[in-house]
Amino acid sequence: MSKKGISVSVIKRLPRYYRFIGELVKQGTVRISSGELAEKMSLTASQIRQDLNCFGGFGQQGYGYNLVELQEEIGKILGVKQGYKTVLIGAGNLGRAIATHMDFTEYGCSLVGIFDSDEKKTGSTVAGLTVTHVSEMESFFKKELPQIAILCIPKTAAQELADKLVSLGIKAFWNFSHYDIKISHKDVVVENVHLGDSIMMLSYALTNSESEENQN
Amino acid sequence: MSKKGISVSVIKRLPRYYRFIGELVKQGTVRISSGELAEKMSLTASQIRQDLNCFGGFGQQGYGYNLVELQEEIGKILGVKQGYKTVLIGAGNLGRAIATHMDFTEYGCSLVGIFDSDEKKTGSTVAGLTVTHVSEMESFFKKELPQIAILCIPKTAAQELADKLVSLGIKAFWNFSHYDIKISHKDVVVENVHLGDSIMMLSYALTNSESEENQN
Repeated sequence: MSKKGISVSVIKRLPRYYRFIGELVKQGTVRISSGELAEKMSLTASQIRQDLNCFGGFGQQGYGYNLVELQEEIGKILGVKQGYKTVLIGAGNLGRAIATHMDFTEYGCSLVGIFDSDEKKTGSTVAGLTVTHVSEMESFFKKELPQIAILCIPKTAAQELADKLVSLGIKAFWNFSHYDIKISHKDVVVENVHLGDSIMMLSYALTNSESEENQN
Repeated sequence: MSKKGISVSVIKRLPRYYRFIGELVKQGTVRISSGELAEKMSLTASQIRQDLNCFGGFGQQGYGYNLVELQEEIGKILGVKQGYKTVLIGAGNLGRAIATHMDFTEYGCSLVGIFDSDEKKTGSTVAGLTVTHVSEMESFFKKELPQIAILCIPKTAAQELADKLVSLGIKAFWNFSHYDIKISHKDVVVENVHLGDSIMMLSYALTNSESEENQN
């Protein structure tokens, strides 16, 4: 199936479809209409039909979507079974939590190494892996050829490490460091995570609802 | 200044403006043109002018934007100085990392309590706060009146706790639990964080670039 012509905004919605459909399959649902799925996902039925039409004919007029097939197809597009070798750089609080909390194999990744520059952290075990000193990255990378790096390091350390990682063959970054990797590396894939942006939406909503209440 | 008529998509871009403008102010930049800001943020100049026009006249033809004023105004709208009392529910790996990693005061929040149902965790100190048993929430909430709850608990425990927290006065959730709080509580504010959605975009990009390479 061609993926040509699928817009970025549809692609960005795919993980959410994949999650919701996965939940329904787990619950034993076999088929669902676009209307029912729309209600669960707070979308419109026509939006869902448009989005899912991009991926072939999984909906049948009057019968709804075959969920197992749809899940498999979206999973294939997302590459959830690829198991891309992934390294974590930074075994501080956040890095350790991510290594421990996430089931990487569900997301197309496989965590194969954890590195830190702090000798107090190296040698300890996190998520079943030994934290290794960053000076040993080069020999590790030559053997393991990881493609994804998770950056859980301070912004000040990020530029040098990102340069190094790209030179060692990293193709994609999951970036918690707040350093803009794209400035020096236009060709790598970067997903920036700014947790602060998300919590600020709560203070925005509370601030705004308060001022509305004051006006009434 | 009226916030009427500002679209949700503009609001959602505000934290990002706030971050970029904050960086520029830190670096000592006083004014910036929409074109320069656009380049830094990978937006178009006309998009930036449109967005920022929603917040009053901080741009002057030929002079660019006064960054300190703009930062202050966007900060006010986002409520970054409100210090909303916030509790964390769940002191596992992820909860502890978030409590330790985030500077809540930058985001309009103030972390005042951490709760867990696991007696092995209660009594320990995280981010300067003592982890307290969830059975003590009620008396704590009556005294402190927190408005925001961060849910770092498994999905299975989330429904009961979300119900309890709403009954105790919580108005907004920062939700890492993957449980859909909106199903039972239409009126509370919820920001869901699905870290898996973000990392899946990397496996998508790698899978897709590989198949493109194979085609060429």
